[in-house]
Amino acid sequence: MSALLYRQLADKLKRAIDHGSLKSGDRLPSVRELSEREQVSLATAVTTYRHLENQGLVEARPKSGFFVREQAHRLAEPEMQRRPARAKSVTVVDTIMQVISESRQPGLVPLGAACASPLLYPTAKLRRLIAAQDRDNLDAIGRYGMSMGHTGLREQIVKRFARLDTLLLPENIIVTIGAMEAINLCVRAVAKPGDIIAIESPTYFGILQIIESLGMKALEIPTDPRTGISLEALDLATQKAGAVKAVIVMPTVQNPLGSTMPEENKQRLVELMETRGIPVIEDDIYGDLSFARQRPRPLKVWDKTGNVMLCSSFTKNIAPGFRVGWVAAGRWQEAITHLKFTNTVSTPMVFQSAIAKFMEEGGYDHHMRHLREAFQTQIRHVRETVERHFPEGTRLTRPEGGFLLWVELPKGIDSIELFQRAIAEKIYIAPGKIFTSGDRFDNYIRLNCGYPWSGELEKGLIRLGKLCEVMLKE
Amino acid sequence: MSALLYRQLADKLKRAIDHGSLKSGDRLPSVRELSEREQVSLATAVTTYRHLENQGLVEARPKSGFFVREQAHRLAEPEMQRRPARAKSVTVVDTIMQVISESRQPGLVPLGAACASPLLYPTAKLRRLIAAQDRDNLDAIGRYGMSMGHTGLREQIVKRFARLDTLLLPENIIVTIGAMEAINLCVRAVAKPGDIIAIESPTYFGILQIIESLGMKALEIPTDPRTGISLEALDLATQKAGAVKAVIVMPTVQNPLGSTMPEENKQRLVELMETRGIPVIEDDIYGDLSFARQRPRPLKVWDKTGNVMLCSSFTKNIAPGFRVGWVAAGRWQEAITHLKFTNTVSTPMVFQSAIAKFMEEGGYDHHMRHLREAFQTQIRHVRETVERHFPEGTRLTRPEGGFLLWVELPKGIDSIELFQRAIAEKIYIAPGKIFTSGDRFDNYIRLNCGYPWSGELEKGLIRLGKLCEVMLKE
Repeated sequence: MSALLYRQLADKLKRAIDHGSLKSGDRLPSVRELSEREQVSLATAVTTYRHLENQGLVEARPKSGFFVREQAHRLAEPEMQRRPARAKSVTVVDTIMQVISESRQPGLVPLGAACASPLLYPTAKLRRLIAAQDRDNLDAIGRYGMSMGHTGLREQIVKRFARLDTLLLPENIIVTIGAMEAINLCVRAVAKPGDIIAIESPTYFGILQIIESLGMKALEIPTDPRTGISLEALDLATQKAGAVKAVIVMPTVQNPLGSTMPEENKQRLVELMETRGIPVIEDDIYGDLSFARQRPRPLKVWDKTGNVMLCSSFTKNIAPGFRVGWVAAGRWQEAITHLKFTNTVSTPMVFQSAIAKFMEEGGYDHHMRHLREAFQTQIRHVRETVERHFPEGTRLTRPEGGFLLWVELPKGIDSIELFQRAIAEKIYIAPGKIFTSGDRFDNYIRLNCGYPWSGELEKGLIRLGKLCEVMLKE
Repeated sequence: MSALLYRQLADKLKRAIDHGSLKSGDRLPSVRELSEREQVSLATAVTTYRHLENQGLVEARPKSGFFVREQAHRLAEPEMQRRPARAKSVTVVDTIMQVISESRQPGLVPLGAACASPLLYPTAKLRRLIAAQDRDNLDAIGRYGMSMGHTGLREQIVKRFARLDTLLLPENIIVTIGAMEAINLCVRAVAKPGDIIAIESPTYFGILQIIESLGMKALEIPTDPRTGISLEALDLATQKAGAVKAVIVMPTVQNPLGSTMPEENKQRLVELMETRGIPVIEDDIYGDLSFARQRPRPLKVWDKTGNVMLCSSFTKNIAPGFRVGWVAAGRWQEAITHLKFTNTVSTPMVFQSAIAKFMEEGGYDHHMRHLREAFQTQIRHVRETVERHFPEGTRLTRPEGGFLLWVELPKGIDSIELFQRAIAEKIYIAPGKIFTSGDRFDNYIRLNCGYPWSGELEKGLIRLGKLCEVMLKE
């Protein structure tokens, strides 16, 4: 039986379910019917249904066959916040650090940090690859390592992006300590204290911390849970020449929204910023975690002048503990090479060479397929539980990748207060407040779906819903 | 026993030492060997060595026999440059990066970068420790790791510094990507663009890069090749309240000078800066590489108010490729915890736990003893070769630790020009110009003695001396 075949067929049915042409409760064709209609073997038809069942999309009912599971999104998606913003100094770091510092408690229900279960990563394989490093790599411990990064790893990155029509050369890649260092260096290369940086709203709080720590100002651009940053708002905000020094976007699987910009928007964004002379810092860290059939292409594809700095990392995909990220820095290649040396000199070679080997040997695609499937399943479980147990009026994203959910709670629920009540019961969540420098998202939370579904998670989520109910009644 | 006999024999050996056929550090024949070879009694052989020992020419090492002592220095030490300086913007980064970028060429004679031979580090041991990490540490690949660092490593650091009367708690330590990130974060915590930072002159060029990249100004304080930073000059420079925002010093085994401040100077420095309200950033990266019988104590010992930020790293001692450094940030602990998260999130745990284990199991002291001995021998060889083959008027430091020599060439030799001629012949040196933001040290170079002595190094140094002679005649 072809692995490809059952996956293709499952994808096809999945799309029909997602688009609503197959609805919750619909009876699916029998195994025999499916086999005949799709010209596949009976075994493949069975495997297809089993696969969809594992993913929680269909259910077998005794003696009746397969049915589409209750999917109906009982909850609407959050809407884009259209309130205009002014550029302002960022002063949320204390709140963010308080939230982060709570995560150190042992035994928390892990719904807060954007961290997946360590068990989902190929840690044993990577340790074997480290142990098997040859004499040359033994030197990786004894030497500083090249500031720009491991040549083999940079070649692997270039190869993968070539498949996405993104033409890079190994010498365009600078390896960094995670995407965080990469974004940091990009911002520092193009802006100085007091300057305005346009960002998505909501955005990953680390980006707010970078802007605050550098004494810059953030201009928040409304960002849609489906289509990403609003080009209209960005267009308006950047009309005054010289006001905005850079824009930071996550065009593919945004954190916290899970949104992916349509390709025409990506192209327009690149062209608009090029015309306006505003550098684009692209954070593609969740790119390979997109659930789309084709891995969405990065902004960099449409970049003709080196105006886009493409940042990414292996932190979410392969090895959170390695802290290996990278940037293809376009026009700012030289400036960022200098800044990298100044900031941390170099990135440990031991890890880079292990990742390069892992990618080279073909383990990467296989691993990523499993990881995405795990995340899809996990998201579905969290979604369903929120739908059943959270108060009326709750809204919920339908992320197109990654492992995060963005939840809009009924007005009146203050997410910082909810955070505090939850942490008192050992439930860790991320309050919406830390995803903005303004006074938005007070009644939003981000939920991490990075862990395999468990009774503990279910109990935690149900309790969280209950806490919301209680707060609403106060 | 004939008085004449032992004197004759002693003179013979003395001539051999003077003429260089017996070199500093060379092992002399055992008493028995000498007695047989020279056909004298054992008593005469012993008396001969005692005589040479009294003359300071040889030394007895317990259970190892007699060795040629470090010889009278033919070349004087460079003097402290006393010229006063004004605070100025740093603009040497382009020069520094050009110098660094040349180091990527293969097959260079490694006299430039402050890098020791990888073979001097316990790489095999460390790889075994990584491979042997238990399940908990397996998670070190699968998780981000604590922003503050590995608890076991922080405990080991605290233990070692307790021996130096430096009282720290594990929670005072923030692990960083090398000392470079540590110093970076310290500077960012206490100063902003435009601010003045007092530094040693000459200083490690990475510190200049940090200051330049942050848009700050450097005020260079004359620094003595024996006693370190001039307290008189620092006192004068900081009399105007608020002018200097921080001082960065390497009080123990300074780079490039190899100087160590006397304890009374250390104490005065700490007290003076405390009185003036100027934070002290202490770079102790070479501290454990001191050749003194007692490992010199850090400034932090005299710090009563948390005004000293002690930065260090395992880069020069244990594993250059791990990029594991740390800072005990005193009053700025919280600010630097935030900045660390913002800059690179966390430091890979895999390496931290391997280093912790290495220290815990007691390998550290043994390794360090060997490393220091190797560096002493290597420095001796380089010194002797420079003394023999460099032009008249050359001056040379007598470093009290580390593996670097600071060489003052006769006036008129431009070290950038020398650097370029040398690199054309595959000899890599560090020109003095990159150790200052001013127009000092044009005729200085820094020589790396981190590699075991070899014919290649000898040839390279002789050629370098020749290039100097040629330049003097032009």
